[in-house]
Formats: sequence, C-alpha cells, structure tokens
Amino acid sequence: MSTMMTDSETTEARGAPLPSVRRLPLYLNVVRALRDSGREMVSCTHIAEELQADPTQVRKDLAITGITGKPKVGYDAVELIEAIEVFLGWNNISDAFLAGVGNLGTALLGYRRFENLGMNIVAAFDSNQTKVGRTVEGRKILPLSRMTNLASRMHIHIGVLAVPASAAQTVADQMVEGGILAIWNFTTARLNVPSNVIVERADFSQSLAALTSRLKRTLKS
Amino acid sequence: MSTMMTDSETTEARGAPLPSVRRLPLYLNVVRALRDSGREMVSCTHIAEELQADPTQVRKDLAITGITGKPKVGYDAVELIEAIEVFLGWNNISDAFLAGVGNLGTALLGYRRFENLGMNIVAAFDSNQTKVGRTVEGRKILPLSRMTNLASRMHIHIGVLAVPASAAQTVADQMVEGGILAIWNFTTARLNVPSNVIVERADFSQSLAALTSRLKRTLKS
Repeated sequence: MSTMMTDSETTEARGAPLPSVRRLPLYLNVVRALRDSGREMVSCTHIAEELQADPTQVRKDLAITGITGKPKVGYDAVELIEAIEVFLGWNNISDAFLAGVGNLGTALLGYRRFENLGMNIVAAFDSNQTKVGRTVEGRKILPLSRMTNLASRMHIHIGVLAVPASAAQTVADQMVEGGILAIWNFTTARLNVPSNVIVERADFSQSLAALTSRLKRTLKS
Repeated sequence: MSTMMTDSETTEARGAPLPSVRRLPLYLNVVRALRDSGREMVSCTHIAEELQADPTQVRKDLAITGITGKPKVGYDAVELIEAIEVFLGWNNISDAFLAGVGNLGTALLGYRRFENLGMNIVAAFDSNQTKVGRTVEGRKILPLSRMTNLASRMHIHIGVLAVPASAAQTVADQMVEGGILAIWNFTTARLNVPSNVIVERADFSQSLAALTSRLKRTLKS
C-alpha cells in the first residue's frame, strides 16, 4: 500500500484510523503547552477549544492511545502526553537517513523539532560530488553509493527521500535493499516498494488543494 | 477556524468534505499521466488500481467536482482533468507572497510544480537585511516591511508563511492587514486570524505521526 487512500482500508489493516493518528500531534502540542504552564489536569473540552475542534472527536481520537479520562475532570496531563508519545513511538528516538541534500533536504536537516517527534536524521546522502564531504546543519554529506551498506550495518528503519522525482524510485530501491522499512517520501513520484515497506507521502499538493478550494469558495461568497 | 479538525464540521461549513478534496490532486496526477500516454477514457477502477485505493471511494470523491461518468466506460480524461482543476481553482493561477526565505522558503521558491497547482509565488520577503536584495530562484527578496502595502496594492490573496515560529503571528497579522485571505502556514505556530481568513497548516508532524505509528506496528509484528 503505497499511499494512504481510504480510512476504512487502513483501519482494518492497521488497527487505528490514520485520520485520528494524524490529529494526535496537534493534541500533544496543546497538552505539552498546558503542562508547561503548570496545569495538571486537561479535559477534551479544553483541548477542543484550543484547536477549535469538536470535543467528541478529540475524545474518540485520544481513546486509540488506550488512555481513559476521569469523568468531569479529564486526563492527567503528564499521563496523556506519555500515552500519545508511546502510541506514536515518539518516546524512543528513531534514527533516520536522508537522501538528497537540495534546498528541501537542507530544510529538513535544519528542522530541530524532529527530535521532539521521535526522529533523528543521523546521516545525509547525495549523489552530487560537489556536495559530498561538505557539512550541512551539523551533518557531513556522504556519497549516495554508501547509503545501502550503511543503512544495513546501522539497522536504520526510516529513510527520508528528498531527491529529484526522477531519481526517487532508484533511491527508494536502494533504501529497501539496505533494510529500510519506512520511507518518508518528499518527492512527487509514486513509489513501488515491497508490501512490508511503508511509504508515507509528505505531499504539498494535498494541503494546497484544501487551501485553494476553500479560498475559491471564500472569494465567491 | 484555524485548522481543519473534523470532517463533519468542514463538510457542513464548506460544502465538500476536505478529506475528499485532499485526495483530488492524487487522482489528477494519475489522470494527467494516462492522458499523456494517449488514453481517452478512464474509469474509477483504473484510477483506484494505480493508487491502490478503493474504487467506491474514488467515485465518491470525484462526484464532488460535479462530473458524472458513463456506466462501464468511465470519464473522458480531458473533461475529468478540467473538472478537477476547476473545482480546486487550479485553472486560474493565483499569485502568492512568500514570507521567510530560509532553507524551507528557498525550497518552496524552487518548487516548480506549484504552477501546475494553480499557485505562483510572485514575491518573497524577509526581515534579514543581509538577504534583502538578493535573488533567490529568480525572485528578488524584498524587505518584509513592504509586504503589507504591496499585498494590498497587488490584490494578493495567498500568503505562504515560512518564517520562524516566533515571528509567525506578527507576520500573519501583516498578511491579514494587507488583505490576504488564505495563509499557508509552514510554521509550527498556531495562528489567530479573523474568521474570514483561511489558515491551512502544512505540518510535517502529522505526516510523520502516520509514518512512525505504522512503523512501530510493523516492527512489533
């Protein structure tokens, strides 16, 4: 399954609905901020207000982490943060490789917040010989030809794909050969991978579609 | 409504379910590729196969554009492309301003595909005096202090926000003051804007949540 297309499909296959999973980071953000401001208990209503969301939806989404709140009181903030982090696998930092150190790849290397999100890009690769050997955002760029072997030796599970679309399939194949099990695809290419490998698209066009279609309706009215 | 939180909420408010809207670019991609390879008619089944999706979902999603296919034959590819483009507002290119020319902003300026997606970044702004005046990806960087006035004079509707999170609200306020109606938020900040202004988050963390939670389940089994 290369892209997440239908809710029902993934619900059945993976145990939790991906739309709910995708909303968890938003809740985590809010609850962390509330905890930092000294709050001990948080309710769905409060989280929903912060995000202008529906409290029932929030309650349903949080339930997938296995946590249960106390009626009229809500959740212990620290326990709720932990439950979300454990559910997402963000309590253990996963090492990742990045392929493609163009503008986007460089932006991803500089995105400090990934460490809060359970991912650490430990090495960056590029096929451009003028880039290899340079240090970008604290990581030395290695030749792409070494990626497969290093991924295998270092037991890397996550590959971040930021190469040109024309090279995407080739580099994805090299990631899979190196034992990478999850590819975060920042290219516009659709990838063919074995069925045990996860591909998640970080596709700007879907977010832009939501923006422009809503704008079009605003301009009409 | 700063972020899209619940399907039902937006369905009611905007006329079409945003999850369906977000999938349209994927279908558009497939149908464009089929047309380019000489195909005249396309069916939901065919599109679904290409994307490993559910044909019923595809049919339902395409229906929001108002197009109806012919039983057992499908859609005229050219008509389907046009219907999706018109629905998304991608048949008319919208001019946009970009604020913040760091690594991410530079990557966005270099993303040629936006023009296929109905958006053209016509000017880029930064508050850093060492950046102002430089040309990046064919656009001269202008001082951020000029953005509000220029947006208003040029009737710009879309603002792409790629500044540091700490500056996000201030720059968003300046966009709104300049008459910008839709903000594409690449920062991690939550924005307060008037109710007639659309904010769409391009948030990596939600996509990463889907990736890591699925990887966690793969590693368990």
